[in-house]
Amino acid sequence: MKRKVEVCFSPAIFGTQHRDDQVVVVVDIFRASSAICYAFANGVQEIIPIEDVEEARRYKEDGYLVACERKGIKADFADFDIGPENFTPDVVLGKTLIYSTANGTKTIQKAALCKRVVIGSYLNLTALANWLVRQDSDVIILCSGWKNRFCLEDSVFAGALVEQLLRTDRFTAKCDSALASLDLWAMAENDLLGYIEKASQRGRLRNYKMDSSIKLCHTLDLAKIIPVLKSGKLVAES
Amino acid sequence: MKRKVEVCFSPAIFGTQHRDDQVVVVVDIFRASSAICYAFANGVQEIIPIEDVEEARRYKEDGYLVACERKGIKADFADFDIGPENFTPDVVLGKTLIYSTANGTKTIQKAALCKRVVIGSYLNLTALANWLVRQDSDVIILCSGWKNRFCLEDSVFAGALVEQLLRTDRFTAKCDSALASLDLWAMAENDLLGYIEKASQRGRLRNYKMDSSIKLCHTLDLAKIIPVLKSGKLVAES
Repeated sequence: MKRKVEVCFSPAIFGTQHRDDQVVVVVDIFRASSAICYAFANGVQEIIPIEDVEEARRYKEDGYLVACERKGIKADFADFDIGPENFTPDVVLGKTLIYSTANGTKTIQKAALCKRVVIGSYLNLTALANWLVRQDSDVIILCSGWKNRFCLEDSVFAGALVEQLLRTDRFTAKCDSALASLDLWAMAENDLLGYIEKASQRGRLRNYKMDSSIKLCHTLDLAKIIPVLKSGKLVAES
Repeated sequence: MKRKVEVCFSPAIFGTQHRDDQVVVVVDIFRASSAICYAFANGVQEIIPIEDVEEARRYKEDGYLVACERKGIKADFADFDIGPENFTPDVVLGKTLIYSTANGTKTIQKAALCKRVVIGSYLNLTALANWLVRQDSDVIILCSGWKNRFCLEDSVFAGALVEQLLRTDRFTAKCDSALASLDLWAMAENDLLGYIEKASQRGRLRNYKMDSSIKLCHTLDLAKIIPVLKSGKLVAES
């Protein structure tokens, strides 16, 4: 029997939609899930997602490498904002990274209701689809959205992942949000960056002068790793 | 300055998305909002939306005309299930109708946070767009979804309404859910019933043998009235 893949468009809906036995793929294309995948691609040892800014500050005081940003501004104590471009091999190789953002890290905490939590982005799309096929579970793709609201870039990515899973013939997608994601992906895939131009978060990043992330966040299959949440830390599987 | 039209894909998101000064359009294509518009088209005097089944039962005991359904089954005490086809002129003309369903009536209660609440469906699409243009407010289209989850038929309708409003040049749509709705509507509009075939609620109605509602719920501009919520009751404006 085929396994089910669902899409959840908002953390606010997740509580009523998820089942404990699902693998949940956390998506925050702009920029948490992309940045986390990029850091692992470049050899980071582990990433600790932190919701609370003060907790992130304490980690910095203890000598950790810290990425922390709120409302488009890097926290004064932090080493980096949360954009993927910060996490080059010379900076992260073999290190522990503390990663704190309002949206993406909150979603990871919420996802922890499920059996397994993994991080998905265009950067590890194909590796992730292959990994999900090897698990023996239904899948739910949890879009971080923005302040609990639907967002385009996460939903389009969800469609890309659903499509890859359906192509393996091991999965079936019946929930309306998965079907809508597939249709949005079909509209976007031939000109992904062009399509995403209209997304609200695209505009916010432009205002914050953080445009450099956009292209990197939409780079396909740069990484073969799957960031998996284990005891509150993200570590790489492949 | 142009007014804003937004779309909210789930009552679970509404709390963080709405503003009190918006007009909210409640949508539940299968079947509450379609049925309510159809009943007004056929001369119902007023409709009282009721969430609680026991309260609906008490109205019946007091001699009211009652539509009440849960999980695809008409309540034993009720006159009708909640399908629009029940509300023909010979039945509803000049009457007060009690209308109780799990999903749609709950959404109406939630919507009451906003300045004005109106009911939208394909049956009153053009009249509704014209009415919204005449109001001096931003608009939020609240999709009932299903158990707080995203649903296709409501979202596609939201796209149809957003498109009509944009065409008047009085509105602008910037939120991602409005933009996604527009794209879904663009995919669906040339074969609306065909597109909706894949919707989960379409399948549920088939299982309940309630297929007769489908076409009626997608009939364009049958009604020129706008059901407006006033002191807990829906009455018609035009």
